[in-house]
Amino acid sequence: MQQEVNYLQQLLATLRTRLLVMAASVGIALEEAGKALAANDPGRATAVMESDAAIDALENEIDEMALQLLARTQPVAGDLRFVVSALRMVVDLERIGDEAVSVAEQAVLMQDTPGCAVIPQVLPMFQRARDAYEQAVRVFRENRADEALQMIHGDGEALQCEVRIIQGIMERLSDPASGLKPPLAMHIILITRSLTRIWRRSINIAEHVYFISQGESLKHNKLDDKTTAPAPLAAEMDAAAAGDGAAAAQKAPAVDEDAE
Amino acid sequence: MQQEVNYLQQLLATLRTRLLVMAASVGIALEEAGKALAANDPGRATAVMESDAAIDALENEIDEMALQLLARTQPVAGDLRFVVSALRMVVDLERIGDEAVSVAEQAVLMQDTPGCAVIPQVLPMFQRARDAYEQAVRVFRENRADEALQMIHGDGEALQCEVRIIQGIMERLSDPASGLKPPLAMHIILITRSLTRIWRRSINIAEHVYFISQGESLKHNKLDDKTTAPAPLAAEMDAAAAGDGAAAAQKAPAVDEDAE
Repeated sequence: MQQEVNYLQQLLATLRTRLLVMAASVGIALEEAGKALAANDPGRATAVMESDAAIDALENEIDEMALQLLARTQPVAGDLRFVVSALRMVVDLERIGDEAVSVAEQAVLMQDTPGCAVIPQVLPMFQRARDAYEQAVRVFRENRADEALQMIHGDGEALQCEVRIIQGIMERLSDPASGLKPPLAMHIILITRSLTRIWRRSINIAEHVYFISQGESLKHNKLDDKTTAPAPLAAEMDAAAAGDGAAAAQKAPAVDEDAE
Repeated sequence: MQQEVNYLQQLLATLRTRLLVMAASVGIALEEAGKALAANDPGRATAVMESDAAIDALENEIDEMALQLLARTQPVAGDLRFVVSALRMVVDLERIGDEAVSVAEQAVLMQDTPGCAVIPQVLPMFQRARDAYEQAVRVFRENRADEALQMIHGDGEALQCEVRIIQGIMERLSDPASGLKPPLAMHIILITRSLTRIWRRSINIAEHVYFISQGESLKHNKLDDKTTAPAPLAAEMDAAAAGDGAAAAQKAPAVDEDAE
């Protein structure tokens, strides 16, 4: 029996290590995609795209490992929650890797777009999305349920950030004096979309950590949050149109705020 | 032993039934959200928002059931893949339900927006996203791996559809004669975003069905697909700007085409 327990603990430790390796690989892809975007460096962007195959291989390996573990041992309680969460977390990590590739692809495509001034618009959001990812990985590594909860409660910010950027683009598109043309606007929208997904998938990871540690899903907390109805989007946009940027920024957009 | 096997089969059948109930509830929410959008009916939209709590409760129930099943019995091979896929599928179903709520919320908010002519722009995409969902549920119910594979190979369509709608909006915004104003454009973009997610989460469900049935992930197939590089987005947009809509529609947008 003791031997079986040790065998299980050893498999769990290996699973955890492989997840951390995958998280680190995705973190590097994200960092490089950001540099490709900031420096307009297509070589760096290509490297991000090529590194995606290794991340996908890690996903398959971890999936297989977790399935074997469930088939051969019989984990219960926290150990079982860990394995099940690993199977879900690996999907989030892989999709964050995909979004890093999307950002890198846009960095390459934008090169030839006239007036390629994407940086001031999306770079601050890139930084926040990356911070959320790094925080999620730390929360997982150090098993910090309290910090996970904090991340989950801030899950409206990603969407607010995206909505604000899209609002800005649309205002500029409808103002002939701004000089913003549809092709560049499209690149900015697609990058912003990827950043929202990276941010919210990071919050998913925090949710898994909370579940492993506390043994309960956060669905109930989320429902509680929903009882405070957000301000209508129309009102927010009117405020933005009237130049009342501060008021608009403070209001939550009235779109569903569940994570990606 | 025979008794244990029967017990496991009974638990698996219950899990399957509850998943189908959840899938049906999400399908109803989606249908009602579409009607709220088409008919501009805020009462119907409110009903969709209120029904979301029941979908969330089903998610918790199925999660709990699958965990109990793993802790008490020891499923292997196809049975194990089914339970693990159920744990992932339930997340996709819940998120599709959330997006139905988002669409309903936009239907309510759009009421007071001047020139609220969203219908011709997003209704065809709504229909395609809903078809994808219904197909995914059928694929699951009838365990059709062949049809699942077909759905997975068409996973670029959702994004192409979204990109085409956003392109159209941006062209109109930058043309003062079109009369499209930023607030309505924002509603259309947020609805389109939800529809893409519904469509691609439906493809996720097809992926789970394929995995249950074939015992392998589709990551490898996806990698093969990627070797045929899509046409650059810039070229597609230039074609669209030049009025060459057919050529633009045929080209895939150069953004990452992995599912939501």
